[in-house]
Amino acid sequence: MGKDSILIVHGGGPTAVINASLYGAVKEAKESGQLEHIYGARNGTGGLLREDLIELGTVPDEKLALLLKTPGSAIGTSRDQLEQEEYERMAGILEKYGIRYVLFNGGNGTMDTCGKLFRACRKTGTDVRIMGIPKTMDNDIAVTDHSPGFGSAARFIAQSTKELCADVRGLPIHVVVLEASGRNAGWITAAAALAEDGDGYGPDLIYLPERPFDEDRFIEDVERLLKKKTGIVVVASEGLKDKTGKPVVEPIFQVGRSTYFGDVSSHLANLVIRRLGYKARGEKPGLLGRASMSLVSRVDCREAELAGRLACRAALGGESGKMVAFRRISSSPYEMEPFLADIDEVMLHERTMPEEFINETGNGVTERFKEWCRPLLGGELDPMISFN
Amino acid sequence: MGKDSILIVHGGGPTAVINASLYGAVKEAKESGQLEHIYGARNGTGGLLREDLIELGTVPDEKLALLLKTPGSAIGTSRDQLEQEEYERMAGILEKYGIRYVLFNGGNGTMDTCGKLFRACRKTGTDVRIMGIPKTMDNDIAVTDHSPGFGSAARFIAQSTKELCADVRGLPIHVVVLEASGRNAGWITAAAALAEDGDGYGPDLIYLPERPFDEDRFIEDVERLLKKKTGIVVVASEGLKDKTGKPVVEPIFQVGRSTYFGDVSSHLANLVIRRLGYKARGEKPGLLGRASMSLVSRVDCREAELAGRLACRAALGGESGKMVAFRRISSSPYEMEPFLADIDEVMLHERTMPEEFINETGNGVTERFKEWCRPLLGGELDPMISFN
Repeated sequence: MGKDSILIVHGGGPTAVINASLYGAVKEAKESGQLEHIYGARNGTGGLLREDLIELGTVPDEKLALLLKTPGSAIGTSRDQLEQEEYERMAGILEKYGIRYVLFNGGNGTMDTCGKLFRACRKTGTDVRIMGIPKTMDNDIAVTDHSPGFGSAARFIAQSTKELCADVRGLPIHVVVLEASGRNAGWITAAAALAEDGDGYGPDLIYLPERPFDEDRFIEDVERLLKKKTGIVVVASEGLKDKTGKPVVEPIFQVGRSTYFGDVSSHLANLVIRRLGYKARGEKPGLLGRASMSLVSRVDCREAELAGRLACRAALGGESGKMVAFRRISSSPYEMEPFLADIDEVMLHERTMPEEFINETGNGVTERFKEWCRPLLGGELDPMISFN
Repeated sequence: MGKDSILIVHGGGPTAVINASLYGAVKEAKESGQLEHIYGARNGTGGLLREDLIELGTVPDEKLALLLKTPGSAIGTSRDQLEQEEYERMAGILEKYGIRYVLFNGGNGTMDTCGKLFRACRKTGTDVRIMGIPKTMDNDIAVTDHSPGFGSAARFIAQSTKELCADVRGLPIHVVVLEASGRNAGWITAAAALAEDGDGYGPDLIYLPERPFDEDRFIEDVERLLKKKTGIVVVASEGLKDKTGKPVVEPIFQVGRSTYFGDVSSHLANLVIRRLGYKARGEKPGLLGRASMSLVSRVDCREAELAGRLACRAALGGESGKMVAFRRISSSPYEMEPFLADIDEVMLHERTMPEEFINETGNGVTERFKEWCRPLLGGELDPMISFN
């Protein structure tokens, strides 16, 4: 009988470093010398169900290294919602291919899949070790201090905010609104506050989805600031809701299960124009915030690779039904300790910003948040200079 | 009597390298040893009229070097529209401060200002040498092969497009529309085509403002492509107009002289959703396209510095009423020759894309355009890898 094989499956939206975790997992698997095949499921769980597997074990190292520079998911990912019977079918496919180790790289939904497959395999008596690799730009996975993918999204928004602040300072546009990802969790939006590190090019207002958004209060905030300076930068979550929980931007269309919302950035800019008559514009980098390779955080990339390696190592070592997680030892100097969390503790628990990280007036963050977030950006942002 | 002084004035919207030209001009002025003061006008021509001058000659070199990393305008810029009498008042102020050299760094509007001040000085008998430094992300200045600022905006849109293509390939969203700057000239939008260099992650459709935009044709283009692939990337100019010249997005508001348009990206995404029922989203990096320092083109940065140096050198050498321009000697290998163009030939002539650079069906660019544009990006984009 031949050696066992391993399979890596991606789930949900990609991050700038999902492929770094893939790199770590494949490298670790290759280096173990224990495995016959190192498979990737093409386009997520659906690929596994279609038995559409990619052989990654034979890819030369110099090609694999390109994964560290590639956004999106290099083996494809999906948002498939699976039925109960499909988990049992999956168990059968794993058995058929001699796959004894499965690594799921994804967010809350994927960890749910991971847990369900774990149980299905127990039920069918399939001898498979299943491990989770955390992955989310939104940083909304429970139990872990933070997730791979977030640090790079945080660096993207902090650097972009800083650059917008420099732009607006040189040529005042009264109000520029930058829209940040994270419909329910404000972590990315909040990271914009790190823009002011160093030379003080920081955002003037930050609105998180954790707090109800009040348009009148927003207009007051803007008016007050415009009495003191000629141009201000606002960072707002794409998922702002009013006090009744209704999105501040109306859904514009519904296709199947998906609802399409208008852009918060242009909505807020329009509010300023209409109600105050000030020049305003909204910017929405959108998917670029998870795909920008030039703003990848070194720390994030390293931790993503590590998470991939550790998940593989743990599975080969006999662990199952767990997710690699990080525990913060210290923020300054940054020290982090990986551990294995029970998948049941993780599944579908969405983690939002705690109160201690949001300022009292709900239009900014606290110093504690900045201390927590700063090391994840992976180094200082480039210093700038201004004479005006 | 003391030595003469020099003044640098910024006009119009900043680019990623406007400060590189400032750096070049100040360094050249310092190195000449001929000047008493090296002034910057705070916030453009208005700063000059307010006699609000910044002393740059005493800034240490290591601080000046930060200009190469700083977006926006480090001395401020403006969109001031001047009256005729203000040019003569300006001439008087130059005389008062012993400013014998003035460098205007800007686009078409600024070159117009430059020319008018040149004539006003002739009229008042003020002995001032006035030189223009070309600057525009939109690349719409006449006479020169290209302008500093464009190469970096081109690199930004090409790299962003490539990253979006990788993202969409890994997790199909049927249609992603990326909005590019340039209301009348399609140069930046067109540069998205360079995304496909190397590993083929290119945009599927490109719509330029030089061609009338037909919504039905757009929908047909999208439908045809979606029969062949699961996710497509569309790059569209912010200034698309229909065949009557009317912007495809309605103006949403008017404040003073300014008209505010909605976003083309979300407009086109909504069209796809409503008319085809496909999942679609629009992204609009907006000002980030001129402020992103991590995607600055090395060639662009070097040429911006060079343009600043040459303008200063020409003025000190007795030239006046001219703008530094570039002549293309060869695209491969890239060879470029600077020359001085008469400011009268430049003023307010907006340069759009020539027919030979646009494909026949008006939804893409030609190979000739790509050959012309490629070297300006300043090096190849990072290679990526995909297994799906």
